[in-house]
Amino acid sequence: MSPKITTELLKQLRQVMKSPKYVQEPVQAYIVPSGDAHQSEYIAPCDCRRAFISGFDGSAGTAIVTEQHAAMWTDGRYFLQAAHQMDNNWTLMKMGLKDTPTQEDWLVSVLPEGSKVGVDPFIIPADQWKRMSKALRSAGHDLVPVKENLIDTIWTDCPQRPCKPLIMLDLSYTGVSWRDKIVALRSKMAERKVLWFVVTALDEVAWLFNLRGSDVEYNPVFFAYAVIGMNTIRLFIDGDRMMDPAVREHLQLDSTLEPEFKIQVMPYGSILSELQAVGAGLSPKEKVWLSDKASYALTEAIPKAYRYLTPYTPICIAKAVKNASETEGMRRAHIKDAVALCELFNWLEKEVVPKGTVTEIIAADKAEEFRSQQKDFVELSFATISSTGPNGAIIHYKPVPETNRTLSVNEIYLLDSGAQYRDGTTDVTRTMHFGTPSAYEKECFTYVLKGHIAVSAAIFPNGTKGHLLDSFARSALWDCGLDYLHGTGHGVGSFLNVHEGPCGISYKTFADEPLEAGMIVSDEPGYYEDGSFGIRIENVVLVIPAETKYNFKNRGSLTFEPLTLVPIQTKMIDVNLLTQKECNWVNDYHQKCREVIGAELERQGRHEALRWLIQETEPLIRVQ
Amino acid sequence: MSPKITTELLKQLRQVMKSPKYVQEPVQAYIVPSGDAHQSEYIAPCDCRRAFISGFDGSAGTAIVTEQHAAMWTDGRYFLQAAHQMDNNWTLMKMGLKDTPTQEDWLVSVLPEGSKVGVDPFIIPADQWKRMSKALRSAGHDLVPVKENLIDTIWTDCPQRPCKPLIMLDLSYTGVSWRDKIVALRSKMAERKVLWFVVTALDEVAWLFNLRGSDVEYNPVFFAYAVIGMNTIRLFIDGDRMMDPAVREHLQLDSTLEPEFKIQVMPYGSILSELQAVGAGLSPKEKVWLSDKASYALTEAIPKAYRYLTPYTPICIAKAVKNASETEGMRRAHIKDAVALCELFNWLEKEVVPKGTVTEIIAADKAEEFRSQQKDFVELSFATISSTGPNGAIIHYKPVPETNRTLSVNEIYLLDSGAQYRDGTTDVTRTMHFGTPSAYEKECFTYVLKGHIAVSAAIFPNGTKGHLLDSFARSALWDCGLDYLHGTGHGVGSFLNVHEGPCGISYKTFADEPLEAGMIVSDEPGYYEDGSFGIRIENVVLVIPAETKYNFKNRGSLTFEPLTLVPIQTKMIDVNLLTQKECNWVNDYHQKCREVIGAELERQGRHEALRWLIQETEPLIRVQ
Repeated sequence: MSPKITTELLKQLRQVMKSPKYVQEPVQAYIVPSGDAHQSEYIAPCDCRRAFISGFDGSAGTAIVTEQHAAMWTDGRYFLQAAHQMDNNWTLMKMGLKDTPTQEDWLVSVLPEGSKVGVDPFIIPADQWKRMSKALRSAGHDLVPVKENLIDTIWTDCPQRPCKPLIMLDLSYTGVSWRDKIVALRSKMAERKVLWFVVTALDEVAWLFNLRGSDVEYNPVFFAYAVIGMNTIRLFIDGDRMMDPAVREHLQLDSTLEPEFKIQVMPYGSILSELQAVGAGLSPKEKVWLSDKASYALTEAIPKAYRYLTPYTPICIAKAVKNASETEGMRRAHIKDAVALCELFNWLEKEVVPKGTVTEIIAADKAEEFRSQQKDFVELSFATISSTGPNGAIIHYKPVPETNRTLSVNEIYLLDSGAQYRDGTTDVTRTMHFGTPSAYEKECFTYVLKGHIAVSAAIFPNGTKGHLLDSFARSALWDCGLDYLHGTGHGVGSFLNVHEGPCGISYKTFADEPLEAGMIVSDEPGYYEDGSFGIRIENVVLVIPAETKYNFKNRGSLTFEPLTLVPIQTKMIDVNLLTQKECNWVNDYHQKCREVIGAELERQGRHEALRWLIQETEPLIRVQ
Repeated sequence: MSPKITTELLKQLRQVMKSPKYVQEPVQAYIVPSGDAHQSEYIAPCDCRRAFISGFDGSAGTAIVTEQHAAMWTDGRYFLQAAHQMDNNWTLMKMGLKDTPTQEDWLVSVLPEGSKVGVDPFIIPADQWKRMSKALRSAGHDLVPVKENLIDTIWTDCPQRPCKPLIMLDLSYTGVSWRDKIVALRSKMAERKVLWFVVTALDEVAWLFNLRGSDVEYNPVFFAYAVIGMNTIRLFIDGDRMMDPAVREHLQLDSTLEPEFKIQVMPYGSILSELQAVGAGLSPKEKVWLSDKASYALTEAIPKAYRYLTPYTPICIAKAVKNASETEGMRRAHIKDAVALCELFNWLEKEVVPKGTVTEIIAADKAEEFRSQQKDFVELSFATISSTGPNGAIIHYKPVPETNRTLSVNEIYLLDSGAQYRDGTTDVTRTMHFGTPSAYEKECFTYVLKGHIAVSAAIFPNGTKGHLLDSFARSALWDCGLDYLHGTGHGVGSFLNVHEGPCGISYKTFADEPLEAGMIVSDEPGYYEDGSFGIRIENVVLVIPAETKYNFKNRGSLTFEPLTLVPIQTKMIDVNLLTQKECNWVNDYHQKCREVIGAELERQGRHEALRWLIQETEPLIRVQ
């Protein structure tokens, strides 16, 4: 992986930053955030502006270019990757390390007095705008919206915005009709006394209408906004997608419907003017509900006095709590996914050990091949992280020809992968050794496993926020002076984004919503040794009620049930470092893998993979 | 404890809320916060306005009185106490429970349109003002400053503001001279480019000048403000305290000093006008540093553009990290404190078991008597919580004649107490049984102990915030469906406030400063069964570097060393619920109590207490 040469591009960007054609006044700095106009984490190629200008294409990062400097902020997952992908024009700002300045502090330290800092108002979330604007203003600078995106002006071969056909999900998948979702939303709106709700996140639009798309790779979403009134529904979407009779039928566009369920379809690009019209027509006390992460442009369309902003929208919260149909779908998806992985790991052991011809890319492709054989497979849920040896330490690594290593009996192999099935989304990481792991590798793996179990088996009161469980995942590592620089878990969508809010398990957040039964998150502690290896053990887990001996204040308790049912390589475990309870957890987990996945392998006639499963789920025995 | 009858007082308050003599326009609601003008937690009698109007005298709570309602917000420690102390005019708002409205939401729900909500601007912290003002404004109401405190207008027998002599601490106690502290502060000011720093918290003034006072019971502080410029030092303090030659000598008031260390002494009441003068004289880019918890009145004295607000001041942070002299002082104080408690517990066992004549008040007085026999004893560090049986479930209970129970062989006894010594501050809780505890009582005690040990023995990376350790203290309780409704620990001052920031161990905060070696916090999980008993095990612990097998990213690790060395009653422990590691922790801890406190008891010739200590520190034996 050689870095992108950005000297010429930066020169061009610095020119347009001063060009009266694009900016009213020259801007001394220009911010290029990661996201798109919907603040998506995964974005379409046409929105990969930060990758275009810098070369760094990880999922999180913000670039800032001034007349003299170019700097990139990203988190611990991407320190190595960003350092590899960017040339010397760029300074890497390692977020989470003590001495790393915030974007605001850095800007204040490098900008000449009274500078203007530009940003595309559609790309920056309103809450970030507010924070940054305030910090800059207090230092004598100004944050200014630049209507035309300056990256787009120099990006001559920028791809088209995608506009692909829609997928309709019926009740057997969603459990709730879109009409009932609208009714529930309006009741939340009535509770908060708001008249309008603006749906800006792509997965929220998709969930609300029980539709899916493929405009963004890995995320089954489509470019759209929606504005829901107490009696109106407006869907902003482009292309001929609304011509599809099945879509028209699904949305009942041609039915004689009660007017409050009649969907008005409008062009995607008309959202700003329509919202400005809504804003202009409001009377005092009439409020419009937006996410505080909605773009600055859309937020500004509503006069300040009429805005009702919350960190999480009612759709985001409702979407996170999976109903019985969604939970059953997620279970089915994870069984199919486990079948594919048993096939893969069995195949890898046959190929890697004697032949040594499997590369990271071949392994990733093979994983996709096995997954694609499963019913209702749609696509992968993220770029497969297939990494061996030192590549495993690059937390969100994706193999490319320049970095592609061959799997061997001498190195640890880490596979973090998942898929979108029509009935659910998967995300699983297994770390394995095809030869004989060293005592140190086993020791580290076992600490990570202890952390994984500590979260998975945790019992905690109803109303507990996920961030309070994060330290459980680290305790065994901390005891030995080890740690990992990423959160422990994220919410997982139901045939939707593999990362979703409002819950998760991370020390970095405090504003997560409390965990409740039906939520689904990942549990994925790790340990990474730069230049040597990476270890991560990840299951997707469902929040379920827990039976406890007592019941303080009648609050009830919760715990997790693993949906992922793929063996954890026992060869990597130093059994003597496990407590008996931890040992039992592993054995019970493997017993369940045998039963559930074994039955499905049998049903699918995959006998070789079944033999592999049986062999990999032999009980651990702990010598007292 | 019978509730205070407040009908007449509320009537009077509602009259002055409408009286043009006190308010420009009538206010429809009046907020009575807990604090004083320094946002102190412990306050002088003249500042106990919330207790005066409501009867509830716990350390935390906010009263709001409207024309129709009177409501009190307090946290889990005080639910029972507040319910006992307030009459039917008051509604108790249980903070932390899901359905309890915030003060703002409640006000919005009960106020008529366009209401004015009054508050004393000296009593409300600026950050609270901002939040509440914003919430009220967005609902069409106004938060207004009422210059004259309305409680004071109806409080005919309000006591005088205290003005007691000062105590000087020399270098052997403080480790750093006040001059060097000013130098360090000015260097922090230069780093942030601020010209002035306003010291508003009483303990910060005391710490900065190496002075102590006794204006507030339990907290060795005195009423004062300070304003530090790059070349000036202004101390706002009343009374003839500055006439004391020793104080003049300590502050070098009569020496020929470099001008930047010359202290100007000014009247306490002149702070607002002096600060307004500072504010009026500022040029652009000149900043004044204040805590964001400083009063709204003082914050408003500085025009917004010139304010530099932070949640924790550099004094607060410097004060939290104890130097070698302070740490040694804290160790000495805790040894003396342990001697007093060994004497007390030995005495209790002799008195309670055969005679049954010891009440909660007698036990508390006896504890104070034994403490007062120790060198450099000054006063208690908080009102002794001496509680038996159901009173133990009132988390911050203080025995009064109406509630005073007699200790017996049938009930659990909880003693949470501490003292101010010239060399340090103590705070220790022990829970014990003088007869035979039930299996359930032992079970609960053991879960609390497991939580206590989990925090005390935790190893965690440098830079970890205390709130990330909170769940460790709860894990054993959570496993059985139990919990406690308070944080796990608070910072402890060095011969200063028993509760201090900026660190602590609580799920409730996210903005705490990272723990670092030299910080001192309490570790005090508990379990409370309303109407039955309370259990809490509290040590004061020092953050120290930890030796670990590995050292990830060279960050280094930390752990805790208990400063409190008082036996934990082994009779209350169900040894079979402990792991071998936990069992070893208890035995090692008791061994250290024997060695350190045993030697001091020997030295003080307290042979009977020494025998008690030896007997109480017999090693636990765990049957495998």
